[in-house]
Amino acid sequence: MKYSKLFGKTIKETPKDATLVSHQLLYRAGFIRESVAGRYYFLPLGLRVHEKIQQIIRQEMNKAGAQEMTTPVLHPKHLWEETNRTNSVGFELMSIKDRQEMEFVLGGTAEEMLVDLVRKFQISYKDLPFNLYQFSTKFRDEARARGGLLRLREFVMKDAYSFHTSEEDFKKEYESMKATYTRIFQHLGLKTDIVESDNGYIGGEYCHEFVVESEIGESRYLTDNEGYSAHEDVAVFEFENKNLDEEEKQMVEVDAVRGPTMEDGVKLHNLPLWQQMKDLMMVDENGNFILAVIRGDLEVNEVKLAHVAKAYRLRHATVEEIRELGSEPGFISPVGLSDRVKVVGDLSLRTIKNAYTGANKKHKDLLNVNIDKDYKVDIEADIALAKAGYISKNHKPLIAKKGIEVGNIFQLGFHYSSKMTGANFRDNDGLEKPYYMGCYGIGLARTLATIVEKFSDEKGIIWPKAVAPFKVHLIGLDLEGESVKGKAERICNLLQAEDIEVLFDDRIDTSAGAKFADSDLIGIPCRVVVSKKTEGDKLEIKKRSEKETQFISLKELIDMLK
Amino acid sequence: MKYSKLFGKTIKETPKDATLVSHQLLYRAGFIRESVAGRYYFLPLGLRVHEKIQQIIRQEMNKAGAQEMTTPVLHPKHLWEETNRTNSVGFELMSIKDRQEMEFVLGGTAEEMLVDLVRKFQISYKDLPFNLYQFSTKFRDEARARGGLLRLREFVMKDAYSFHTSEEDFKKEYESMKATYTRIFQHLGLKTDIVESDNGYIGGEYCHEFVVESEIGESRYLTDNEGYSAHEDVAVFEFENKNLDEEEKQMVEVDAVRGPTMEDGVKLHNLPLWQQMKDLMMVDENGNFILAVIRGDLEVNEVKLAHVAKAYRLRHATVEEIRELGSEPGFISPVGLSDRVKVVGDLSLRTIKNAYTGANKKHKDLLNVNIDKDYKVDIEADIALAKAGYISKNHKPLIAKKGIEVGNIFQLGFHYSSKMTGANFRDNDGLEKPYYMGCYGIGLARTLATIVEKFSDEKGIIWPKAVAPFKVHLIGLDLEGESVKGKAERICNLLQAEDIEVLFDDRIDTSAGAKFADSDLIGIPCRVVVSKKTEGDKLEIKKRSEKETQFISLKELIDMLK
Repeated sequence: MKYSKLFGKTIKETPKDATLVSHQLLYRAGFIRESVAGRYYFLPLGLRVHEKIQQIIRQEMNKAGAQEMTTPVLHPKHLWEETNRTNSVGFELMSIKDRQEMEFVLGGTAEEMLVDLVRKFQISYKDLPFNLYQFSTKFRDEARARGGLLRLREFVMKDAYSFHTSEEDFKKEYESMKATYTRIFQHLGLKTDIVESDNGYIGGEYCHEFVVESEIGESRYLTDNEGYSAHEDVAVFEFENKNLDEEEKQMVEVDAVRGPTMEDGVKLHNLPLWQQMKDLMMVDENGNFILAVIRGDLEVNEVKLAHVAKAYRLRHATVEEIRELGSEPGFISPVGLSDRVKVVGDLSLRTIKNAYTGANKKHKDLLNVNIDKDYKVDIEADIALAKAGYISKNHKPLIAKKGIEVGNIFQLGFHYSSKMTGANFRDNDGLEKPYYMGCYGIGLARTLATIVEKFSDEKGIIWPKAVAPFKVHLIGLDLEGESVKGKAERICNLLQAEDIEVLFDDRIDTSAGAKFADSDLIGIPCRVVVSKKTEGDKLEIKKRSEKETQFISLKELIDMLK
Repeated sequence: MKYSKLFGKTIKETPKDATLVSHQLLYRAGFIRESVAGRYYFLPLGLRVHEKIQQIIRQEMNKAGAQEMTTPVLHPKHLWEETNRTNSVGFELMSIKDRQEMEFVLGGTAEEMLVDLVRKFQISYKDLPFNLYQFSTKFRDEARARGGLLRLREFVMKDAYSFHTSEEDFKKEYESMKATYTRIFQHLGLKTDIVESDNGYIGGEYCHEFVVESEIGESRYLTDNEGYSAHEDVAVFEFENKNLDEEEKQMVEVDAVRGPTMEDGVKLHNLPLWQQMKDLMMVDENGNFILAVIRGDLEVNEVKLAHVAKAYRLRHATVEEIRELGSEPGFISPVGLSDRVKVVGDLSLRTIKNAYTGANKKHKDLLNVNIDKDYKVDIEADIALAKAGYISKNHKPLIAKKGIEVGNIFQLGFHYSSKMTGANFRDNDGLEKPYYMGCYGIGLARTLATIVEKFSDEKGIIWPKAVAPFKVHLIGLDLEGESVKGKAERICNLLQAEDIEVLFDDRIDTSAGAKFADSDLIGIPCRVVVSKKTEGDKLEIKKRSEKETQFISLKELIDMLK
């Protein structure tokens, strides 16, 4: 490819809103352009990298026995209604009617489409397991798109869906996909942490994110460096018992002229924070009230809370709502509360005795409050937010990290096959049974941006070999002279004849300095210079990742690149 | 790939609505499944063929110097408003709003997107020409989808857009694309006719369809086998002069108690059909009246008429509308007609003298009507419908053909660059000028179906080598015996080690007959049988396109396949 002919040349300016290195460099080097926020053009250079990432994913998925296919982009909406996802996904879902007034969803993930396909077949236990995957454009109507390719509203995703006779069989595939993903990201030059995470609107019981550690990442997770890594939305930890040896005393209501905060309670009663009960009044998407109660030194994890309360969206109750329930902001308590409120108690409430909390009346507190005796919870579950320094299941302190989620794998179990009729296979006992499922996604554009976030310097991108748009950046200098020009073109042709991809900077009106700067910005792994100084068969070579130039023959270059 | 593991096995039943061979075979052989009308899943076998077609197109486009990139699937609607295509495309366009109330169009073609991209750059004459292409999902809200893959509402299209400093430069690319397309279809095993055609809602002045002759095709075209081929919508022909040597007589109104047809006129006046004027009152999408007038022995081509009248959609006027204009159905004439009507006269009116026609009154006709003298036309143009047997520009009779349109190439000229602001390049005289454009499309799914329409027999598909899902269909028989099974697996592995794609029918519980039938249905070019009868190193080979089996060694097989 001649650079003079390439569409999408380097520029000096950075878009005003580009704060991320990957956004700046991919834009300046001519890999991408924005159409509107969250929707991007891939220019020829960018698409070459995108396709290499795609090919690496494809090879590894095929090796793992998965089979590539495609679904339509428009999903009949009635399928999403079968699984109630039109409600659970909410605003991120875009829908559209055709001229026959049939409604479609712009696919964000394709579980329903795959189940609808598979149930068109008479599947028996002999056909299972299988894992079907596709590369296709996905749509997410994100409230806020992030600059560049990190959070898009439209992107190509590799999504895979596996079908099994049993959980046991599924678990083998889940582990195989874990290994496959690790290998894919290794090929791409990325080290990933495998992080337990929240399954969002996908459904199922557990899932893992593949996260590349990065300061600019939006995935916050905790790890003990002993095999436990979990997104802060789901991370668990150990908490010690506090005063369980105390005798349970008689609950008593006392005057409490204090402010509404936890600290106000600590000061007034001169008791430890952990002995106080923290009470959070929330409202779900249907207007139901949920009171979350937790030990005072801990915080409520609203994602965990939503899960155990089976809510899609939670918000804090207003002052008026709290008063209408017969309580008082700053003095809420589960004791004697309206039965319109569902009480969710954290497991940590079992580590304290004789707690203190509000009395659902202004300036009144309760002392010596004990679970079961003085109040009951409707749901008792882990709703605590883990933090750095807390102790992991492995008895090690948790460390907080940030990273970019580049892939994820989900146990789906019977979530879809139980909701969609006919999502069955015939087992070897002749009975029809729902299949057990998993799904597995990788966002290609975000992966591409992550590679740039990890591999760049002040001059530009430094592409890992496996995904570089070209293998060699051949820079011709002094090309006004026919003999140098001829030599450069010959080298270009010889390299291409060896199936080595070459970007040939054949511009005549551009300075050597500008060409070198462009080459550093674009980031092709190997730079070769041909100029009137080029003597004999020795070519000037410089690797993008190194400082030194070296002089080697074309044959040595070809050997090096192969 | 083991057939026992393949998702999407053969079945015997054909979908009820499947009238086309390609639909039936691709369905039964396990290549595709319908989601809803016009929207299809590609199963693993189908996607393999689809990807091979894609790869052949990509290679030839790259060879021709085109550069691959991608645009978003959702196009900002304001771009389509800049070129007024939201009106011209009509119901086929699907649009959608995001949560920010921004409107998008689901891309059907991407001219505006490409211009919007290119105008983000400072393009100079040195950057031109370039040709940018993509493979992406396109949407057409077709009123009626056709069975199988021939007319889809959603499909992957290769669309390319070229940008030039001048018409002259464009014409070179147009010819290059003509040659490239011819080569692409040749590689795919398809012989194409290059047919002048209507540009539909794309814009521009001329275009060509690549058509594969087929009885089930929807493209009707005429050819003289001397280099002239044209879609019936645009075909031109020569018509001889009739009675031009006659003297122009005085127009006269006569009683004409007759029916409303052309034949009624011929009978009443006992004059030739060609001497009669045929008058068609039409209404455009804005309610404007257009009278098309043509020699009586010819028919009006409504596509040509719409073009010269600059109308998007035409319909016949109602009886009431005609009377309201002061005329009478069956007796319409341009003579003395309301000036609310725009009169479009066909060139054939210049080949007759002393014509006869209605007098805009019931049971009154006019005789000796002559153009210019007795009536004027607002637009004089070719609006005549060509038919088989008419004489081409090359003085040869036209032959009518039907075929499937698999690709098309369009001159766009300044259609887009003149409508969209900033769609300019800086020329070598320093001035900003609009670029001259062309575009070039291939529908992959339709091409795939066309291959099946052309290459099949009563047993199934006969894939051309270049696009076959696998190169070898290895059938193992007697696999309950370990030694035969081991031998078959060894041969499978050896072939795969040579990069030969093998589908290995490893089923134990299936009869030889069923396996052979499946193999014929799926249509892989080369069938290899391994059974307990297999002796020494001689394998039983049969080509799908031939009747005879032969016995050759594995080495000979590999040589044959490479």
